[in-house]
Order: sequence, then structure tokens, then C-alpha cells
Amino acid sequence: MKLYGHPGSTCTRKVLTTLAEKGREAEFVSIDLFKGQQKSPDYLAKHPFGVVPFLEDDGFTMYESRAIIRYLDAKLPGPKLTPGDAPSLGRMEQWISVEQSYFTSPCMTIVRELVFTPMRGGTPDMDKVFKARGETGKVLDVVDRALMSQAYLAGDTFSLADISWLPYLQYLSATPHGTLITERPFVKSWWQRISTRPSWKKVNG
Amino acid sequence: MKLYGHPGSTCTRKVLTTLAEKGREAEFVSIDLFKGQQKSPDYLAKHPFGVVPFLEDDGFTMYESRAIIRYLDAKLPGPKLTPGDAPSLGRMEQWISVEQSYFTSPCMTIVRELVFTPMRGGTPDMDKVFKARGETGKVLDVVDRALMSQAYLAGDTFSLADISWLPYLQYLSATPHGTLITERPFVKSWWQRISTRPSWKKVNG
Repeated sequence: MKLYGHPGSTCTRKVLTTLAEKGREAEFVSIDLFKGQQKSPDYLAKHPFGVVPFLEDDGFTMYESRAIIRYLDAKLPGPKLTPGDAPSLGRMEQWISVEQSYFTSPCMTIVRELVFTPMRGGTPDMDKVFKARGETGKVLDVVDRALMSQAYLAGDTFSLADISWLPYLQYLSATPHGTLITERPFVKSWWQRISTRPSWKKVNG
Repeated sequence: MKLYGHPGSTCTRKVLTTLAEKGREAEFVSIDLFKGQQKSPDYLAKHPFGVVPFLEDDGFTMYESRAIIRYLDAKLPGPKLTPGDAPSLGRMEQWISVEQSYFTSPCMTIVRELVFTPMRGGTPDMDKVFKARGETGKVLDVVDRALMSQAYLAGDTFSLADISWLPYLQYLSATPHGTLITERPFVKSWWQRISTRPSWKKVNG
């Protein structure tokens, strides 16, 4: 199995965490996003949308991280990361979709303005940060209420939904707005629970 | 089972199509999107993000259409809309993700500018339409290549991936840019195949 990606890419990290949970390693092919290698003709021949990650598994190839993690969970032995009963499955899928629909964009706006922009010598747009903080907080309020009565997003057990949120929360936690996590008691304890898992510690280094 | 939604909403239509494929009806509660009923306190108490659809099923409630259709397929008897083998499952999930990540935004820009904006007495922004046409065509080129060797997005059988694309393709087909579908031979025959299913004919009226 061969995984094309970048160690800092949130979507690559979801796949690496899933592999680690399953006790499996893939050959890692690093794609240099800073040099635009994901838009090279060689890579575009594999992945027509020119982003990471991309998976090759014994002749079968696919892309889209949220699809790859479901494929790996269905295919590989090891602990199941998808609940077997319909309500918990529905709950897992709901939170994967909430991450994509409402959370990631404002969360990563904060990270981009306060981490990536200064790294490149730019000045953060604090109006954008302020607006994104409000939106991120609103989503985390909803998560906090859900986690009042359950340990993980899908219910009692860790699932692909928790994996989907980990990389974004990790970046957020490294900004001054990491308080968005620690100010909310149930989000805070959930974050402690999921970010100390051996799989995430391995991926996050 | 009670479904809150709007008959013209793409996301509501995915759920209605899934129910029709399963041979099941839910009590339909119409939410008036034009009057902003989705942002009313009563509705926000159910769905904290204030969009449709929302599902109630014997005490269990959930939102996010892409999650609801997976829940319904797992829960209800009737034909399976999710492949049982990992590669076909991965393929289905890849195309559901491609729809959300790359297709829907440009496709619905065309529809909004050429259908909804004139309906409200506005003038379409043709620069936006032109740009969106290019992006939509690029995604459909990728779909066309995939469909050269298979009848449906996940492989040989109709799945939740096809359901996910139907409502957007229907709106696109009603604009002058419906040629984006009919100009591509494999997309064209796939579209004919899926849009003539009894489930979609029932939902599309």
C-alpha cells in the first residue's frame, strides 16, 4: 500500500491516523506542496484534482481523504472505526459532515491567518480572525452539547468522526484561539481523550 | 418517520430519493425556505445550523443529508444502496466527496445565476457563469472517464453516490448549460439511466 501525501496536510493526517489505529503502515510518498508538486503532470495523471492524499493499494487507486478512511476501515483488519448499528453510524456520518460543512473553513481561517500567513512574512487579517472565531465557537458549542452525554462523536466508541476532527483541532490548539477548545468542558475532555491516543501521537510527532 | 425539508432543496431531494428507492415514505413537514422558516427558533431548536433536511425517526433525530441517506440505507429493508465490498464502497465514497468538494459549488453557481437570480428579477452575472461552466465541465470530464468502464459511480450497481449527484444534475439540465451533460457520452448515458428511475421521477414530479 502506497500513500501519497504531505505530513502536515490535515487530509493526509486523517488517513495516517486511520492506518495507525488499524496497526498498519503504508509506504509514504511525500508530495512537496510548497513547490506545487501536486499540480505536476505526473501527479495529475493520478489525481485529476491535484490535491493530497492519494492511495494506491495493490492496483486499486483512489482519492478524497474522507473516502479513503472509510475504505481502509472496511478493508483492513483491526479495531472497527465505524459503528455497526444504524443510529451510531448516522451520528458518525453527521459529525463528519458537520466538520466539512461548517467547522473546517472558519477553523482553518484562524490557523491560516495566525500561523501560515506570518510564516510567509505576511500580516494576519484580524477582522477575518474575529469573524472566524465566532463561527468556530458556534460549531464547538453544538459539539459541546452533544458530548455532554457521550464520550465520542458517534457515541461510546472512537470512530472515523473523531479522526476527521483531530487534525483541525490540533492546528487550532496551537494558536491563541485554542481557548475555543479548552473553554468548553465537554469539548476539552474529548480533545484530551482523542489527542492522547497513540495513533494521533504517532502522526502528530 | 418525519422528514423536515423543502421539495425543491437538493439536500432534501437526496433523502426523498433514498426513501423512494427503499420503498418507504416519511411524513413530510415542509419548511418554507423563502420565508426563512429554517432560521425560526422552533426549527433551530431541532437543527442548530438552520438548514434542511432534518429527520425524526422514533425518537432518534439527525441532520446533514449525506449522513441521513447513509443512516436510512443501513436501517431500512429494501435494496442496498451501499456496496458490500471495500473497493466499491471506497469508490462510492470518493464520488460523494467529489460532488461536495468540487462539483456542487460551480454547478449551483450556474443554476443560481441563470434560474434563481432571474426569478427574483435580478440580472445574471455572466462572468461568474462562464467561470463556473469551465469548472463544472472539468469535473464532468473526470466523471466521463470513470463512467467509460462502469454503469454507475460505485461500479455496476446504483448507489448513494448516484443519488448524491442527481439533484444538482437535474437543475443543471434545465439551464442552457445542460449541454455540459449531453456533450459527454458516458455522462449523458449515465444521466439518462439514473434520471429515469422511478424513485427520481417520483421526487422530481
